[in-house]
Amino acid sequence: MMQSPQSYIQANARKFEQDVCELLSIPSVSTDPTYRPEIDRAARWVASRLESAGLRAELIATGGHPLVYAESPQVQGAPCALVYGHYDVQPADPLELWISPPFEPAVRDGNLYARGASDDKGQFLTHVFSAEAWLATEGRLPLNLKYLIEGEEEIGSPSLRAFLQDQSRRLACDCVVISDGAQFGPGQPAITYGLRGIAYFDLLLRGPSRDLHSGTFGGAVTNPANVLARMLAALVDEKGRIQVPGFYDDVQPLSPEERQALASLPFDEQQYFQQIGVDGAVGEEGYTVLERRWARPTCDVNGLWGGYQGAGAKTVLPAEAGAKFSFRLVPHQDPARIATALRDMLQAMCPPGIRMELLTQHNSPAVLVSLESPYVQAAARAIEAVFGRKVVYTREGGSIPIVVDFYQRLRADTLLIGWGLDDDNAHSPNEKLSLADFHRAIRTSARLWQELGTLKPQQH
Amino acid sequence: MMQSPQSYIQANARKFEQDVCELLSIPSVSTDPTYRPEIDRAARWVASRLESAGLRAELIATGGHPLVYAESPQVQGAPCALVYGHYDVQPADPLELWISPPFEPAVRDGNLYARGASDDKGQFLTHVFSAEAWLATEGRLPLNLKYLIEGEEEIGSPSLRAFLQDQSRRLACDCVVISDGAQFGPGQPAITYGLRGIAYFDLLLRGPSRDLHSGTFGGAVTNPANVLARMLAALVDEKGRIQVPGFYDDVQPLSPEERQALASLPFDEQQYFQQIGVDGAVGEEGYTVLERRWARPTCDVNGLWGGYQGAGAKTVLPAEAGAKFSFRLVPHQDPARIATALRDMLQAMCPPGIRMELLTQHNSPAVLVSLESPYVQAAARAIEAVFGRKVVYTREGGSIPIVVDFYQRLRADTLLIGWGLDDDNAHSPNEKLSLADFHRAIRTSARLWQELGTLKPQQH
Repeated sequence: MMQSPQSYIQANARKFEQDVCELLSIPSVSTDPTYRPEIDRAARWVASRLESAGLRAELIATGGHPLVYAESPQVQGAPCALVYGHYDVQPADPLELWISPPFEPAVRDGNLYARGASDDKGQFLTHVFSAEAWLATEGRLPLNLKYLIEGEEEIGSPSLRAFLQDQSRRLACDCVVISDGAQFGPGQPAITYGLRGIAYFDLLLRGPSRDLHSGTFGGAVTNPANVLARMLAALVDEKGRIQVPGFYDDVQPLSPEERQALASLPFDEQQYFQQIGVDGAVGEEGYTVLERRWARPTCDVNGLWGGYQGAGAKTVLPAEAGAKFSFRLVPHQDPARIATALRDMLQAMCPPGIRMELLTQHNSPAVLVSLESPYVQAAARAIEAVFGRKVVYTREGGSIPIVVDFYQRLRADTLLIGWGLDDDNAHSPNEKLSLADFHRAIRTSARLWQELGTLKPQQH
Repeated sequence: MMQSPQSYIQANARKFEQDVCELLSIPSVSTDPTYRPEIDRAARWVASRLESAGLRAELIATGGHPLVYAESPQVQGAPCALVYGHYDVQPADPLELWISPPFEPAVRDGNLYARGASDDKGQFLTHVFSAEAWLATEGRLPLNLKYLIEGEEEIGSPSLRAFLQDQSRRLACDCVVISDGAQFGPGQPAITYGLRGIAYFDLLLRGPSRDLHSGTFGGAVTNPANVLARMLAALVDEKGRIQVPGFYDDVQPLSPEERQALASLPFDEQQYFQQIGVDGAVGEEGYTVLERRWARPTCDVNGLWGGYQGAGAKTVLPAEAGAKFSFRLVPHQDPARIATALRDMLQAMCPPGIRMELLTQHNSPAVLVSLESPYVQAAARAIEAVFGRKVVYTREGGSIPIVVDFYQRLRADTLLIGWGLDDDNAHSPNEKLSLADFHRAIRTSARLWQELGTLKPQQH
């Protein structure tokens, strides 16, 4: 009896769950060196599972934790998708808050509980199982697949970055598929097509060589804490407009279509404010909350310090004061150009008696995938076919540095399709993944290969 | 052979040194409860020494350390001066930095080294010895003297404050004499006729109920650290003008005579900047460094905090941010009125999404003694007669809360006449007092009684 990929997935549902549980049982905590043997075990497990799915897999040693790389049997004339995921997990503590032990997967109320269930073992494996379904039933995939599964995502992907730089030719692809996030809501799948960039700065202002008495010296010495406040206040006006010269030069207005699409998302601003414990907010004038979060640049002070921070009063004129602040960037803004304009602006504000140090900590441009991209449209078709519901298009306010690296090194559109939910407790006790979503995701992934396989490959 | 007060002082120079050394040998550290027996010993020593000088002394128990109070034999029709001083000292640590032990007085290079030599045992005793000189030679003083020597000056004078409130009638006087500071420079005696006041505030801004991710939330949540910077920056403009509405309403312009007098003081701005390690300063436009320090109001941020202060970058949108800041005030400014105007100003700036808490920490008006005061002029005559040099008139940028209390409770002009020097290491290891200044001070004090005795008393 001839099976289809979808019927294979149906038939192997329990097997796939058992497989996920096997990997979830390995405590592959990347940040703690004592777990290094478990990291290696997990990497070997993933490579072996890719092999048993019918792919050619290898372990790639790095300066850190091994990468798992795999390729599907070549399909001439078909496009190529690169699946990215990570087999490492966050630490599980505080252990006492887990209902069942973090590395003993348990099912409750249709959810699979374990560290890594949602982030990311349970998500990336859906793309392995779906490939197996094709290979086991059709004997071939409708496209070329590459898998790059790393073990350092939770510690900043240092080895993967170096690998991307060296091996961008080997990794050449038409699109990158990443399932390491959440749906817009339960049963409401989303494609995330935009990530903001970031330019993060560390500002230190040095004044007098030591803390001075603010009575004896105040008025006659430039106070670095006062100057710091003035500089930070000058970065952005009370209408949320950033004042760094030229900051908006490369910002393109949101299209009426995109604004319309964002406005149509089921999003309740009052409920949102309630969840974060505020009665409202000021933000950039003329934009909705979702636009401000996803599609407009920001300036946030992330930290500031100086002088006396204890209880009561100390009449000190501090020797120094400092702050960390960052701009979230939207497409086409150049972090380096902004850093230069910022430095010039602050230097011009720096008064006699203050020495200024400005350090760039992070620097990453925004990523935006066109909604016209055939890969995005193929993904939408696959999702809608399986979920039976229109996909929504979302952006993310944060940055995912590795996506920027993919974009810059591979020049490939990235499909961010999260199978999880916002309340999956990634990074917290009792991490979970809905089993219904897990199975639906495997079916969607199998359909995604089919949809992507109909597209014309770019030259690689 | 008939002696004069001055010849008595000459003849008893060694004896006075021995007496100071006796008191300096008692480690009357007020802040450390283990020294409480030494506090009591010092208080008894002072009372007994006042008695042996010919005054009627008593120990007054308080909730804290005892006060020593004394009165001279009454002189009908003569004015009354109240001598204030303190027998408690700062802790001596770090002990290893002392050349000779802090409570074993030692003479080197004409200086007497011991904790308390300058602050304040060696200074207030000059006014005791001078009274003894009058009583021992003339059999009477040319005025009425009251002595109030406390044991809690280094811990904020809590008991003295309560005592002043209860006993202001008993302490009634025409002027208060305080020697607990420094000359303008070696051999250049000064009368300090003005102290700035202070209004010190604690500002806390609360935003979201927890720290948020600045990528996911930034732009759509009011950031308390950004708002803090805006509020602090709004307090004072870049020309040093304070922007709190009505702040300058009660500030009186400096008279041309006073500006002239301040300008004539031997003060090197470049050397001053060098000492504090800066290449210059901004301050209120149109005023000299001395005017800014002594005679103009200020606004200094004393401390600020919020969000992430560690190494590297953390993309946090902080739940709260706060600052401590203070205004130094000049005569006629009302701290309470300023606090109200400040609160109104900041409240009006407080945007949706931020809850503001503003707390007043300190509140003390400025004190200014008229240079026309007959007591000031009498002190100047006494100093100039003994030092053979014109006295200079200085103000202090800081506040001395107890002087404000004297001013408010007793309505008496205060004569701040410091016998020490700026490099006496008060509060530091190797505290010292010049013996030449010590003896000159006793002679000046004896002359001061004479000069004050010629004045007409106010009604008390």
